[in-house]
Amino acid sequence: MMREVAVIGIGITKFGELWDMSFREIGIRAGLEAVYDANLSGEEIDGMFVGNMSAGRFIDQEHVGALIADYSGMTRDNIPATRVEAAGASGGLAFRQGFMAVASGLHDIVVVGGAEKMTDVGDVAANSIQDSAADQEWESTLGATFPSLHAMIAQRYMHEHGATREQIAQVAVKNHKHGSMNPNAQFRREIKLSAVLNAMLVAEPLGMFDCSPISDGAAAVVLCAMDKAKRYTDTPVKVLASAQASDTLALHHRQDICTFTATKVAARKAYAMAGVEAKDVDFAEVHDNFTISELLAIEDLGMFQKGQGGKATEDGETALGGRIAINTSGGLKSRGDPIGATGVAQIVELVTQLRGTAGGRQVPDARIGLAQNVGGTGATSIVHILGVA
Amino acid sequence: MMREVAVIGIGITKFGELWDMSFREIGIRAGLEAVYDANLSGEEIDGMFVGNMSAGRFIDQEHVGALIADYSGMTRDNIPATRVEAAGASGGLAFRQGFMAVASGLHDIVVVGGAEKMTDVGDVAANSIQDSAADQEWESTLGATFPSLHAMIAQRYMHEHGATREQIAQVAVKNHKHGSMNPNAQFRREIKLSAVLNAMLVAEPLGMFDCSPISDGAAAVVLCAMDKAKRYTDTPVKVLASAQASDTLALHHRQDICTFTATKVAARKAYAMAGVEAKDVDFAEVHDNFTISELLAIEDLGMFQKGQGGKATEDGETALGGRIAINTSGGLKSRGDPIGATGVAQIVELVTQLRGTAGGRQVPDARIGLAQNVGGTGATSIVHILGVA
Repeated sequence: MMREVAVIGIGITKFGELWDMSFREIGIRAGLEAVYDANLSGEEIDGMFVGNMSAGRFIDQEHVGALIADYSGMTRDNIPATRVEAAGASGGLAFRQGFMAVASGLHDIVVVGGAEKMTDVGDVAANSIQDSAADQEWESTLGATFPSLHAMIAQRYMHEHGATREQIAQVAVKNHKHGSMNPNAQFRREIKLSAVLNAMLVAEPLGMFDCSPISDGAAAVVLCAMDKAKRYTDTPVKVLASAQASDTLALHHRQDICTFTATKVAARKAYAMAGVEAKDVDFAEVHDNFTISELLAIEDLGMFQKGQGGKATEDGETALGGRIAINTSGGLKSRGDPIGATGVAQIVELVTQLRGTAGGRQVPDARIGLAQNVGGTGATSIVHILGVA
Repeated sequence: MMREVAVIGIGITKFGELWDMSFREIGIRAGLEAVYDANLSGEEIDGMFVGNMSAGRFIDQEHVGALIADYSGMTRDNIPATRVEAAGASGGLAFRQGFMAVASGLHDIVVVGGAEKMTDVGDVAANSIQDSAADQEWESTLGATFPSLHAMIAQRYMHEHGATREQIAQVAVKNHKHGSMNPNAQFRREIKLSAVLNAMLVAEPLGMFDCSPISDGAAAVVLCAMDKAKRYTDTPVKVLASAQASDTLALHHRQDICTFTATKVAARKAYAMAGVEAKDVDFAEVHDNFTISELLAIEDLGMFQKGQGGKATEDGETALGGRIAINTSGGLKSRGDPIGATGVAQIVELVTQLRGTAGGRQVPDARIGLAQNVGGTGATSIVHILGVA
């Protein structure tokens, strides 16, 4: 019933503190880059989906689907523009809506964008806005911040699975190394294990280098029905699977906080849809908003046994050149995390790798890539699998 | 390629100042009522779409898709939950996403909800949040409020088309009369023309009774593949068409502010998809956030010639018993306008009429109904057409 869908264009801004550009400007830049990359004039586009978490609070602007459509000239043809939101998973959700729109036959070519402008407010406000991804009545209002919720996960994970503080910290070391090879990354410096371990504590055991930064940025992709994709590109990348699952918003309602059930469910559905297993995946972008999150992700995705993620990271199995390269872009940790853009940026990295154009951070013979995008502390998880067409 | 889709359940809370209930509570109430109405146990539901404009600013809570799924027990099966936003059109947009999800075959049964809790902040804050539907850089920041933008439209409309202040005011008189027959309406009192004309001015020529109120409320519907609908209900209502279009966010970029092009485009697509014409529509719910908006709507939808909407309203053509009953629910004006809920509440009214269960406000022999839901000053417009199956 569903038809095949390809990614035919990608665009991304630099991530970081982009004080000289507005929200709409970064959204348009990423979108137009994707449109040019897809060799489109723009008139072929018949729909737009925008992932954004909280422009309402960051820049006092809701209705950002129509806003981006407007300022990129798409309202000339009055195409539908839809904003979706699932906190940190907003970008992945936008990609999923775009995929469904094309797979269903309702649209032929759509642009999917993700954007967030976080630095127009101060750090305290930005952190408070991020906390609105958690359960306001049972977590945020009572003082549980986003880092402290993840710190509880880390403490419990170390207790249950015997992981060491050093193993968790190695996630940051690896992702900074990967990010140093990504020209669009917010942080392009390698860091040493000692720097991570000795950094100012944010919420024990997590220090400053265990947390992804506050970022501005945008990313965009163009999706096209596979049977039309060859008109525009010689290297279409196929969307093999799209899956989404939810879980309780508050951590205390979960049986086990060292596993994100939503990720496990979404992964199971995605592998079934793509007809592949975890061991077939060559590389992955996972949601490392905190170092501990990456360990949960690679285990919940079935790439490593529960509790073995830390050891695997320490042994270099998840680094470029290891068994399965995780977060070659630098991940949220080093590339940056402009919330609504993150899930789309993951897709941009997958396509870059599958096209073989990742330069110094290229995964050799990359055929199948996976992206996992998380909202809140795992209340939303979205898994996409892409492959060489 | 698309399969037929039916509405098999509806639910709605009272609209108004619901100070004794939280956002999540009204969302769950409407959702469960819809699930019961559809004779479901809940386990059959495999997806959820939530329309909400600005919970981030009204109640400091983003991620409200997962939130509502969580507190209505839907995360037990980890079903995907997606929040969509297009300002005032958020509810219609959620319904459209749910329709696409079922029509495409990706889902069999989904719940679509819309909710907004606006009275937890003061009136000044609530108005400022509503202004974030307009262009923040070119309108809101410069002092153009939502009522003043619509006042400019009204002034221009009177100038260009010779409509009288009395004709515009008659929209409020009619909708309050309709709303007096709706037990869930925020305002259930009829008002006289003189009351509208003599009310405190908000933005000339629009007075207090020309503006929809600030409201709390939620509405929900259950969508099901038509071939399965008869298992659950004897009176499925068929979704004949779904269409969405966009326009510039700022009014000053438009050639003509007395026409919402997005509505015209969405209507044209919807009529084509449903295989009907404007004259075939028996009744409609349109987006009367201001009295003037209803006149634009019934003209842009092709029900009346441009400039004739005021005269038609004055002559009773749009009242119950007239040529085409408009806003039998009382519309945004009298039923209330909890922003994210509004577009779903329109669908609830359509289904109620098409089932023939609207009581004192029943449109005789209602076969085809239309809903038009607008975001901002027409930057998003969504049109749905429903019919007796």
